[in-house]
Parts: sequence; C-alpha cells; structure tokens
Amino acid sequence: MSALNRTDKPTLVVYPEICQENIRRMTGKAKRNGVNFRPHFKTHQSTQIGEWYRNEGVTNITVSSVSMAEYFADAGWNDITIAFPFNSLEIDKINALASRIQLNVIVSSLTAAENLVRLATQNLRVFIEVDAGYHRSGILAENTDAIRTCAEVIPKSNKLSFAGFLAHFGNSYNCRNQQEIIDIWNESMVKIRRLKQLFPQAYISVGDTPCCSVVEDFSGADEIRPGNFVFYDFMQTVIGSCRPENVGVAVHCPVAAVYSERRQAVLYGGAVHLSKDSVDLQGKKVFGWVGNADKMYIPSCYIISLSQEHAIAEFPEGIALPREGEVLAVMPVHSCLTVSCLKTAISSEGERIEIMKG
Amino acid sequence: MSALNRTDKPTLVVYPEICQENIRRMTGKAKRNGVNFRPHFKTHQSTQIGEWYRNEGVTNITVSSVSMAEYFADAGWNDITIAFPFNSLEIDKINALASRIQLNVIVSSLTAAENLVRLATQNLRVFIEVDAGYHRSGILAENTDAIRTCAEVIPKSNKLSFAGFLAHFGNSYNCRNQQEIIDIWNESMVKIRRLKQLFPQAYISVGDTPCCSVVEDFSGADEIRPGNFVFYDFMQTVIGSCRPENVGVAVHCPVAAVYSERRQAVLYGGAVHLSKDSVDLQGKKVFGWVGNADKMYIPSCYIISLSQEHAIAEFPEGIALPREGEVLAVMPVHSCLTVSCLKTAISSEGERIEIMKG
Repeated sequence: MSALNRTDKPTLVVYPEICQENIRRMTGKAKRNGVNFRPHFKTHQSTQIGEWYRNEGVTNITVSSVSMAEYFADAGWNDITIAFPFNSLEIDKINALASRIQLNVIVSSLTAAENLVRLATQNLRVFIEVDAGYHRSGILAENTDAIRTCAEVIPKSNKLSFAGFLAHFGNSYNCRNQQEIIDIWNESMVKIRRLKQLFPQAYISVGDTPCCSVVEDFSGADEIRPGNFVFYDFMQTVIGSCRPENVGVAVHCPVAAVYSERRQAVLYGGAVHLSKDSVDLQGKKVFGWVGNADKMYIPSCYIISLSQEHAIAEFPEGIALPREGEVLAVMPVHSCLTVSCLKTAISSEGERIEIMKG
Repeated sequence: MSALNRTDKPTLVVYPEICQENIRRMTGKAKRNGVNFRPHFKTHQSTQIGEWYRNEGVTNITVSSVSMAEYFADAGWNDITIAFPFNSLEIDKINALASRIQLNVIVSSLTAAENLVRLATQNLRVFIEVDAGYHRSGILAENTDAIRTCAEVIPKSNKLSFAGFLAHFGNSYNCRNQQEIIDIWNESMVKIRRLKQLFPQAYISVGDTPCCSVVEDFSGADEIRPGNFVFYDFMQTVIGSCRPENVGVAVHCPVAAVYSERRQAVLYGGAVHLSKDSVDLQGKKVFGWVGNADKMYIPSCYIISLSQEHAIAEFPEGIALPREGEVLAVMPVHSCLTVSCLKTAISSEGERIEIMKG
C-alpha cells in the first residue's frame, strides 16, 4: 500500500508482485495439463504487462478486438486470436494484419463463415465459435449439422484453414461457489467432447478465468484463454475464483467528504473511473470493496452507490471513519472495465504503466 | 440516420440539430424564469459542443472535476463552477486555476470549509453544498447550525467569499413520471426556501435535467445547472424528462452475428463503449434501445445484456432481424457515461467531434 498517499485523483494502481504470481500460477497449471496457454490480453491492455507473460514463456495471445490485435502486433506479438465474432466491416484491417502476423479469427455463424470466404485475401486460421451453454455468441454445440456445414464452407477459400472450435463458458460468471464453476466446466466440456468425436482433428480452445482458476484437470482442451486472472477483482472473489489477496489492482480514491451521522464518505472515484458494474451481496448492489493504509480490504466496507464522479463508501459500526484528504483503495468489481475506463495506471512502486488508448 | 453506414466499429454519433434545439429550449426556459443558466458540461466534455452554448449566449458553466475545469478554461471559459465536493488534495491545481479565471467551488462539509480556508491562496467564490434529500453529498438542509457555522468559517480567509447554496436533486433520477419529478422539485425547494429565509443574501444554484426539463416555474432558484439535457438518453425517456425524438446521441454498432432461433443479434458494442449502466423495464435490466436505418428506435427492441465488447440485442416477433454487416443505432442508457467511455464522436454529418481525454 506504499502508493496510497501519492494521488490527488482516482488512480489505477497495479501490484506487480501479485500479478506476476497470478501469471506464474496459471502458466504452471497450463504446463502441468499439457495445454497451450493463450492468455486474453483484454484485461490489462498494456504492452508493459504483456512483457510479464513473455518472461514466463508465453508466445501467443488472445484479444477482443481488431484494434487490440493491431496494438499488440505493433508490440511484437505475432500469433494473435481475435476472440470476437468476425465482423465483416473490419475485413480490410483484418487482411492487413494477417499479412504481417499469424492471425486467428472466429466465425460465430454460417453467414460469417460465408462472408469471410468471400472477403479474405490473406492467410487466416479460422475457429468456429461454439455455444456450449452461455448463449451469447457461437453456433449451438448441439447443432452439429450447422457446424459441419460451416466447417465445410471455410476451406472453400484457399486463404482459410479450419483450425477447430473455440468456446467461452461465460456462464461461469454467474456462479457463486467453486462447485458451481466445476459443474459449468463439466457440463460444457461434455458438449465439446461430443463435437471432438465428430471432428477428431479439431483443436479445442476454451477456458475463462473462473474455470481455469478452479478446475484442476483440463482434459479435452488443447488451449486455455483466461484473461481476468492477471488482476482478478471483487467479482472473482465472490464467484470463488480467487482470494482477496490474489487481487492485483485497486483504484486509489481521495476522500472528499465524510458524513458521520450516516457512516458514509464521498470518494472522488465514480462510474467513469470504476465502471458501473456491480455485484449482488445479500440482495444489495455493491460497486467496490474499500481498503485503507492498514487493511487492503476492510470487512463489509463497500461502495454502495456510484454516480459519474462520486462513490459513496459505507463504513460498518466499529470501523473508524476516514478523514477528508485521506486516500482509500477500492477493489473494483470488474477489473477489465475499470482498466478500460481509466486507460492509464501506476505500479505500486510508482512506475507509470501505459494502457491502450481508444 | 445518414451516418449509419460509415462505421466499422462502435461509434458515438451526435445529432447537432437535436442537441442545439435542446440547448435553445433550456436557454429559453431559464430566460423566461429570470434565472442564470450555468449548464453542466460533464455530459458532452467537448469544447466544440461548448460553442453551441456560447452561440445561445451562455457565458458560465459547471463541471464535475478540476481536470474538466482546466480543459474548459483552456478553451476560453472564464467563469466555472466545480460541482464536486472540494478535494483538498487538489488545492494546488485549484489555486493555479483560480489565478486565471473566476472559479467557484463547493464545500460539502464543515471540515472541507476549514481546509479550504487554510489552503486557498487565490480568490474563490464558495458555495455550501446542501443535501435537500438526495443524500449523496452536502450538509443536510435541516442542519442549519452546521450550515451557519460553515458560512461563518468561509470568510475567515480573505481569499474566500461565501456565495450561497448549491444543491443537486439527484433523487429525481429515481422518478418514473413527470408528477414524481415535480414532487421532488417541490419537496427539495421547500427546504431551500427555508434556508434562504435564514440567509437572505445567499445565491441559490439548483437544477438537474429531470427537474429542469419538467418543472415550468423555477421560483426560489437564482441559477440552474442541468447537463444531460443536451443529449438526453434512454434513462431520461423512462424518467419522463424527454421524448425519444429529443435524444441527440446514438452509438452506431456493427452487427457481428444473428441468431434467428432466439431472435437475437450480437452487436459489436459492449460495456467499454456504452457503459454498464442499465434501466429497469418491467423488472428486466435493459442496456440500450435499438434502432435501424428505417426507425431510430424500434418498439421494444432492446440490448438485454452486455459484456466487454458484445451487446445482445433482442428483436420482438414481427420485427425483421438485421443482417450481419449491417450497422444499428443504440440509444445509450446514460449518455454522460457513454461519452466518457468512447471519448470521441462524429456528428451525423460526419464531422469529427473532440472530447476531453483522461
């Protein structure tokens, strides 16, 4: 907490030791399981933090947009999967990028596969995105006819190779304990294994942060793609993916006003800094977990409401109220969104950390 | 909707004619009421859009942070109120800014007033922030002893002048019809008028977008400070502040995948573009209102979930599903947060609109 006194406005602080330990733990787990580790970089969006993975031997990554692929390609990453449904309107950028790195894309519908066949002018590895129960994007895993048609369409372009199946078990984010997470993994992997029997050559890319943090045996997967685990966040502690001491980021926020009669303080740090994401705790919406110089996370001390620039922190009886002018640390609910809001960070040692803009 | 086909990724589009009409309407209402119009610029955060106000004769503004005050001071605005509780850690920036413009600040507690007295080296007009029922920040309007003490503390510095009372009736955002908004205004203004009897010289600054949009008679106020009205948004249509056709912004989002069996489409446009703010419609969380080239807002066609880069739009029976590669317009739930996420915009005529960074 050495950086607690340095900031006059809401500042994203990254704890390198915690993050590097998170990276080492996940790298080790992938190695023990004999699967490729292709971490999702949408969480940190930072070329500097990217180097922490390279130090652990990571050579390939996942991103969530074409712009993010360009950003990391410029930083020397030359094997990138864009894990967002192929958007035909971005074909020019995709072709340009594929001419200089190994680019892997996903098609999430038959129409997308047909459009890609028509539009690709450069070599691309193509994954079919499969919906294993989350119902956000991808062809339903049960819909093997559509998947087969899609797999047959892709090789119609000599620029495209059908690589395999990619799935995101995002329903794991609705879990509230480790057994529920394991159940989501098992239930989803049953569907993936059935597909693998029909397409034995298909490479299987799966693995979100809750599942990769909790599940020990990745059998059936060839590759995992967790992202959030580098920082974790309040949400992940509630899901059961990590302990509070594994969380590697905080937003340091000045205390602007204290109201002792309602045991609340107004922090400078609002929805434009933390994001408006919330987590339900005993039926109450909570927007962050508050800590101070003594205690990185004060029991039951939460942000209970957020507006554009204000956070209201509520202090339980028995906890000393902060002083105006003090700086508090807020554990964000969803670190990926907080990074994207703040777009710049400092390390706990005071080093500036650049984050992708725009 | 002329800009619907121009974008390959989520893009904030501003409709100047609608916004300028919103500005004219509010300027006219302030004039008819004989109150000063000090619009809040936190919504648009753009010097270009600021000029649209100047054209209507606006000479003073409100902002929500010291950085935003610096940004607009650099663009020639020389009478600015920072409507965020005085944060003593930013005193150096505040003193520096006060040496070059008329700067007005608010103190939201007695401690803040004492700190400001100790730290101010430049002339500042100081408002006491009063809590008229919203319970976010400010001294309780009923707590006249504390308010009197605060008003007596401020002039102890010869740099400070006690200007009056500032309040934000933010509980109007919980309203769901115009009568509820009028009730919040009346209930809050009763408290403000009682204060005014005790401090007859105090200048009264109030006025959020719901109240200023719906209330016709601003008696008791000397100044209004609405901000959101320039763009409005989905939330404001639900509150009852405006009609859908008054909303002057949309996020244009490419359609990446269509799932006819669940009548849903995945749009490229997630929480990092729209913000995670939501509105409850019949017990369901909704994250945006979807329109297409034919219809700016399709009845009952909403964004029903958001992740980092994905939006799921659900299309009611009887509405044609979009095509992959089409661009749809999404009316954001909370335009202030969307602007802050995207940090750049284009006008519907294709002109680039700069927004404050950081």
